[in-house]
Amino acid sequence: MPSPFSDRLIDAVRKKQTPLVVGLDPRLDRLPSQLRTSNSGRDPATAADAFEKFCCGIIDVVECQVAAVKPQAAFFEMLGPPGMSALFRVVQHARAKGLIVIMDAKRGDIGSTAEAYAQAYLGDEDNSAWACDCLTVNPYLGDDSLQPFVDRCQQVDCGIFVLVRTSNPGGSMIQETETRDGPLFYTVADHVQQLSARLPGRNGYGSIGAVIGATHPEQLSNLRSRMPNTIFLVPGIGAQGATAKDLAGAFDSNGLGAIINSSRAIIFAWERDEYSGLADDWQRAVEAAAEDTIADIAAETSAGKLLQSES
Amino acid sequence: MPSPFSDRLIDAVRKKQTPLVVGLDPRLDRLPSQLRTSNSGRDPATAADAFEKFCCGIIDVVECQVAAVKPQAAFFEMLGPPGMSALFRVVQHARAKGLIVIMDAKRGDIGSTAEAYAQAYLGDEDNSAWACDCLTVNPYLGDDSLQPFVDRCQQVDCGIFVLVRTSNPGGSMIQETETRDGPLFYTVADHVQQLSARLPGRNGYGSIGAVIGATHPEQLSNLRSRMPNTIFLVPGIGAQGATAKDLAGAFDSNGLGAIINSSRAIIFAWERDEYSGLADDWQRAVEAAAEDTIADIAAETSAGKLLQSES
Repeated sequence: MPSPFSDRLIDAVRKKQTPLVVGLDPRLDRLPSQLRTSNSGRDPATAADAFEKFCCGIIDVVECQVAAVKPQAAFFEMLGPPGMSALFRVVQHARAKGLIVIMDAKRGDIGSTAEAYAQAYLGDEDNSAWACDCLTVNPYLGDDSLQPFVDRCQQVDCGIFVLVRTSNPGGSMIQETETRDGPLFYTVADHVQQLSARLPGRNGYGSIGAVIGATHPEQLSNLRSRMPNTIFLVPGIGAQGATAKDLAGAFDSNGLGAIINSSRAIIFAWERDEYSGLADDWQRAVEAAAEDTIADIAAETSAGKLLQSES
Repeated sequence: MPSPFSDRLIDAVRKKQTPLVVGLDPRLDRLPSQLRTSNSGRDPATAADAFEKFCCGIIDVVECQVAAVKPQAAFFEMLGPPGMSALFRVVQHARAKGLIVIMDAKRGDIGSTAEAYAQAYLGDEDNSAWACDCLTVNPYLGDDSLQPFVDRCQQVDCGIFVLVRTSNPGGSMIQETETRDGPLFYTVADHVQQLSARLPGRNGYGSIGAVIGATHPEQLSNLRSRMPNTIFLVPGIGAQGATAKDLAGAFDSNGLGAIINSSRAIIFAWERDEYSGLADDWQRAVEAAAEDTIADIAAETSAGKLLQSES
């Protein structure tokens, strides 16, 4: 019998001994020189091909290091249909390597349109076009707009991460609005927690997760106790300014309950001073940056226990 | 010199003498029998081909009737890469026919990711992959997540419609949350109004619009006075239950300031009892339903003045 997404994810995190997730955010002007071609800035098909090679090259490096990758749909959409075909093949490659795929597309709509998005992205090759394990979802349209995604997760053992408190400064505009019951993101947090509490897996966590930015460390620990059955997807370390220390509150006492995304600081590592010695071998730079991030997270949070328990 | 989106849209509405927009929401199980094939439910490429024929067939009918079409991205995404290629060709066909294209994709993200979405969808063939005139955008991530879209609109004379008050019952969960300054959607409404007031076109309306559902008629007129420089995109009539009467508050005294979307009630018109006489000619049924909707809106709202002023 297949496992719920939450258990599949936790099993994979335990196996890889780290909650790190690598974000696949390709950008034309930052591709390794080996993957650039003279016209890749002009021809979408050539650019999409370079994106695919780059992302698959990252997957080949990190498949032994991390449990999941998180492709960012926007950068592929920017290249039109050829970009979408490249995204499709990147997802296939990641799944073939045994990685969990979290599609970061922040979709959201009502009724049968939400059903269409859920079916588009969540499932396997037999029942879903993109066949991802998980999707990020925007809650502005309310509980009935989330429900088709929740239903789909249950039907096909997939997961979603609902935006609760995002890492950007402007996120406060709506999310921090004061209501009778505290900041507005509590409304979303409590709803997501209810959804996950209804269907906890054998680890106590449900498959309806929450996106909580690492740039608000005090809110992370606050929400950790408020949402005991909810897995967090935490962006914001690395290029967005938060550090591994800021993540401590995201985890439960067993080092579970959160996965940590880093994109630019890992996938463009060869541009960084720390890895300048590997500037000629971009994949080794990616590997080294992922390894260092994994070590940082283990040193600064209870996720370090994952190492002890498996070694 | 090219005109701002708001003026292009208003000019087109004046020319067609109606604020009606036709939504392109293809669904496999509701295609006209002529466009169905035995395996169109199984093979994504065949299904995508049927979606393209269907949507282009609608465009061929309504190009003389309305100013704009609104493709719903979700239904194309459901078919994977072949669906995205079909969407691309549907957009091209609509633009070739002189129609304004509003991509209903409800995108939203932060920083450079929002920039990528803006560039993906807004612009012309030389600078944008999908080359639409306008995009729907989700505001949950706050003002700094909207800004890349706003900047792009100014650079390439395009527009966005920001979700303010949606037509679904669950929309109240976040949008109606009581804050110090009224319901939360006022916060979004006031921000959108500020953005549009900064760059009004020659008709007084800016290119940063708002999605306000027709299912809340009292809020429509309330927001009409609160947002004097903002064009509304109003979904919710037809299949979602609102009627032309409910739309009256959306318009200014000249019959401008709002465009009205109808999708299912028009594009699947041959399934409706009213048009059963046209069941064998789906395109004539679409034409008749659009014509009737146009007449209803003209009869029940100040948009009827568009007819007088041009005839």
